[in-house]
Amino acid sequence: MTQPRRDFKWWGWGDPAVEPELDGEALATLRERVGELEPWPLAAELERFELPAAESLPQALTDAVGEANVFADTEDRLRHATGCGYADLARLRGGRLDAAPDAVLLPQDAEAVRRVLEICAAEGIAVVPFGGGTSVVGGVEPLRGEHSRLVSLDLAALRAVEVDRRSLTARLGAGLRGPEAEAALAAEGIVLGHYPQSFEYATIGGFAATRSAGQASSGYGRFDALVSSVRLLAPAGELRTLETPHTAAGPALRELVVGSEGVFGVIPDVTVRVRPRPEQRRYEAWIAESFEAGAEIVRALAQGPGLPDVIRLSDEEETEVSLALSGPRGIAGRAFDGYLGLRRRRRGCLIVVGIEGDGESVARRRALSVRALRRGGAAYLGQGAGCSWEHGRFQGPYLRDTLMGMGAMVETLETAHTWSRLHELHAAVGAAIRDSLAAQGTPGLAFCHLSHAYADGASLYFTFISRSRRGEEVEQWREVKRAACEAIVAHGGTITHHHAVGRDHAPYMRAEVGDTGLDVLQAVKEELDPTGIMNPGKLLESRSR
Amino acid sequence: MTQPRRDFKWWGWGDPAVEPELDGEALATLRERVGELEPWPLAAELERFELPAAESLPQALTDAVGEANVFADTEDRLRHATGCGYADLARLRGGRLDAAPDAVLLPQDAEAVRRVLEICAAEGIAVVPFGGGTSVVGGVEPLRGEHSRLVSLDLAALRAVEVDRRSLTARLGAGLRGPEAEAALAAEGIVLGHYPQSFEYATIGGFAATRSAGQASSGYGRFDALVSSVRLLAPAGELRTLETPHTAAGPALRELVVGSEGVFGVIPDVTVRVRPRPEQRRYEAWIAESFEAGAEIVRALAQGPGLPDVIRLSDEEETEVSLALSGPRGIAGRAFDGYLGLRRRRRGCLIVVGIEGDGESVARRRALSVRALRRGGAAYLGQGAGCSWEHGRFQGPYLRDTLMGMGAMVETLETAHTWSRLHELHAAVGAAIRDSLAAQGTPGLAFCHLSHAYADGASLYFTFISRSRRGEEVEQWREVKRAACEAIVAHGGTITHHHAVGRDHAPYMRAEVGDTGLDVLQAVKEELDPTGIMNPGKLLESRSR
Repeated sequence: MTQPRRDFKWWGWGDPAVEPELDGEALATLRERVGELEPWPLAAELERFELPAAESLPQALTDAVGEANVFADTEDRLRHATGCGYADLARLRGGRLDAAPDAVLLPQDAEAVRRVLEICAAEGIAVVPFGGGTSVVGGVEPLRGEHSRLVSLDLAALRAVEVDRRSLTARLGAGLRGPEAEAALAAEGIVLGHYPQSFEYATIGGFAATRSAGQASSGYGRFDALVSSVRLLAPAGELRTLETPHTAAGPALRELVVGSEGVFGVIPDVTVRVRPRPEQRRYEAWIAESFEAGAEIVRALAQGPGLPDVIRLSDEEETEVSLALSGPRGIAGRAFDGYLGLRRRRRGCLIVVGIEGDGESVARRRALSVRALRRGGAAYLGQGAGCSWEHGRFQGPYLRDTLMGMGAMVETLETAHTWSRLHELHAAVGAAIRDSLAAQGTPGLAFCHLSHAYADGASLYFTFISRSRRGEEVEQWREVKRAACEAIVAHGGTITHHHAVGRDHAPYMRAEVGDTGLDVLQAVKEELDPTGIMNPGKLLESRSR
Repeated sequence: MTQPRRDFKWWGWGDPAVEPELDGEALATLRERVGELEPWPLAAELERFELPAAESLPQALTDAVGEANVFADTEDRLRHATGCGYADLARLRGGRLDAAPDAVLLPQDAEAVRRVLEICAAEGIAVVPFGGGTSVVGGVEPLRGEHSRLVSLDLAALRAVEVDRRSLTARLGAGLRGPEAEAALAAEGIVLGHYPQSFEYATIGGFAATRSAGQASSGYGRFDALVSSVRLLAPAGELRTLETPHTAAGPALRELVVGSEGVFGVIPDVTVRVRPRPEQRRYEAWIAESFEAGAEIVRALAQGPGLPDVIRLSDEEETEVSLALSGPRGIAGRAFDGYLGLRRRRRGCLIVVGIEGDGESVARRRALSVRALRRGGAAYLGQGAGCSWEHGRFQGPYLRDTLMGMGAMVETLETAHTWSRLHELHAAVGAAIRDSLAAQGTPGLAFCHLSHAYADGASLYFTFISRSRRGEEVEQWREVKRAACEAIVAHGGTITHHHAVGRDHAPYMRAEVGDTGLDVLQAVKEELDPTGIMNPGKLLESRSR
């Protein structure tokens, strides 16, 4: 029987056995760039962790999911009380949380989910749908809204896999983690191709609920583009879109469910487009003369044929810092053995290119990218560097744990814009982060990569690192985050390209979709969730009218 | 100053000077397949046409758009009283309409649209947004709902063209017809690539409001896939989505506006993705051994690399009838000079393949399609046949006028499904149409082509022709349409792949999106259009609760 997740650090990311360390050179560089760090140990062990007392829940909920599927001890409540953003981990490190679910429910099928929603709607109990718990924007924060009780609805047991090989689609249960879904598809010779950095622990339901984008989404498509139909179990009823390749039958309700972040209801499964497993994968690295030159290369590729499946351009700062910090275990998963070659160049911007497919397609698309890269003045660094990036690409969050333990604040945020306005946005957000860090007396690093290239634009993914202000870690983070978000909004970028809205970006939804857009989303919520039990405080702040 | 459209037959399709005729052989074939036809002349000239009297409208509306932009004579009212479906043209042929707008308003800018909506919402005047007036599903039918007055809001004067060459996007006004938009883009060396059969008269706003698909949409993408951002002027306010290449900021409101068919508000302009003009275009025809064999070829192409921009497979019946009827002016625009070669084969299914792009891309993709076509057992018919199809592809509606004048009922309808269920749907809908025609004593032709191929499925486009039952033309049509729609619904197909919902498919929306889906759409409508003035009776039948 499925249990709530335990194979994950309660205070950080992933497998507790994985503890990367920085080598001496990396430590020296870090110290040079952010100053001396003061170790930041965990304030409490799991057994001594302070959680608010749990409210008692109606027996009907236990009956709905079965007694064996109700979990109310400290560990399970704690493990469902936060996502994996910096602010979450900082609070866990502090040994005390102000909020946690009163219990974790683990429904064994969609019917049990339906019963839970019915009971919670009738009783006024807030429900937080929980997939992998990897949200970095407060998406699973146990906010109660107007309700006094709250349950975390862990969807791990929803594990359907139904493949239509002929139509190249698969219905996948919400609870499947990335590798579990891929393993089930691999048995049929097919692949989904969705690899966000959270891949190893995030779930299909979470990908759909948050409009996830993966590292290979330039080629495979964002998760929202992979969804062909979807189901939503809402307090007011079930919504199901037809499994047809396309339709002109009105507004796309599928697109209203995808990205709904649990505020309308629960997505028990989605039907996605899959494709034959690639026969070959070729990853390699290049170095462009500047961020501008590199961006022109990526634009040319995205606007022509032959866009690679992965294309990722680091700015000067990210390239330099990555090189400095990349030893056997590099920062942000970017450990590559070709970096010595790179160091010979004074400046430049790293480009990772990944192409997957059959031999003919890989060869052809590689030829097209090589042409664009050379035309744009980039120099080849080799496959070693690209493969190292690929192998290390899920390691970034582990290194964050190490850095936090050393006393650093480490956070990422992202946006997107059209090619015409991308550089302006890049400069503005970087400056806003650096200025905010400096103004708080903790000057640090802010660097960025361009990824997820489209014909009309691209996303920008920022990382910042500084000394954390002990005892005021969350306030310090909030200040930088606010500065970055305001810069994004001021320059017309989207508040999020793929981390979603959650709690952290909800205040910026008015800038994103306007008053009328918010009213429409709120009207949909009131229709589907009239008592407001679904994931309060996420995506939509409460309506003021 | 823009005027309401007059360069269009008031009783049929397009340029009044274009009057195709069937040659003797085609006539003989038609007679053999549908029986003797009895000529069906227009019952009245335009001047003698009977329209209901117009209600008087408030002076404020005249003030809102300017006196020169209010049109209330019979001709303009009539020209805005129907779309271009068979049932519409049958009623026009009958010389009498039960409904027409009280006036046609021609706002000169978005601000005037906003004022009109404000006045109409306050006064309770129904508003029908009008683009090209080419709907074949009753999308511009002047249904008043609960209101006693109705205006047609002709958007022809909304003609913005703003190109962002760097990001390959363009903001295009709702009133631009297909060729007008393409001409404006051609001046910048770019192309939209959206060519539905209605291309010459349909508008950008209509494409967006109906989720249009064009003949080259397998390559260029459906119109909904081309839209990067959109504006909606609703009675409750303005909705505008950000111009960023993608976002994870909640449900996609863009996808709620696209396909809204005027029931939420007016789309004054959309921002679309464009691309460099293709250097080369290669159209050619092939013949597959059977519909099943042809469908396997199309599936292989759609699930691999190198899907052509146009791929269109006629079933046996469509192939046979097209050949028989294709003289210098062929049926359904399918006049091709290579048809003699085709006739040498006893049976088979015509495939039209169109590839556009730069020389290298055309050559490569052609090689991939040729490989798939040969592997699937298809025989090459040459470029002549393909080019003839391309040149004649907007001619189908003209021929329908000819056939109607001869006394025929001619209508088309379409659906889509996954590859796994496509043949079952094809058989069921064809049988439903033939059975309904036979049961009414007017046995006739029902044939189909597969187009708009996706990795997970394809659309099916049916045409039927029979003798029209004089005096009961609309009832006869309604019966066949109902039978076809019920077959589609029973087999899980979508009620429409690209003709949209309008009035004709509204009764099937419950089957399409379910009770909860309808409630959600209705909630959005009530939020954006609280007094229910926007395009009553389309898309959503009135809520019963």
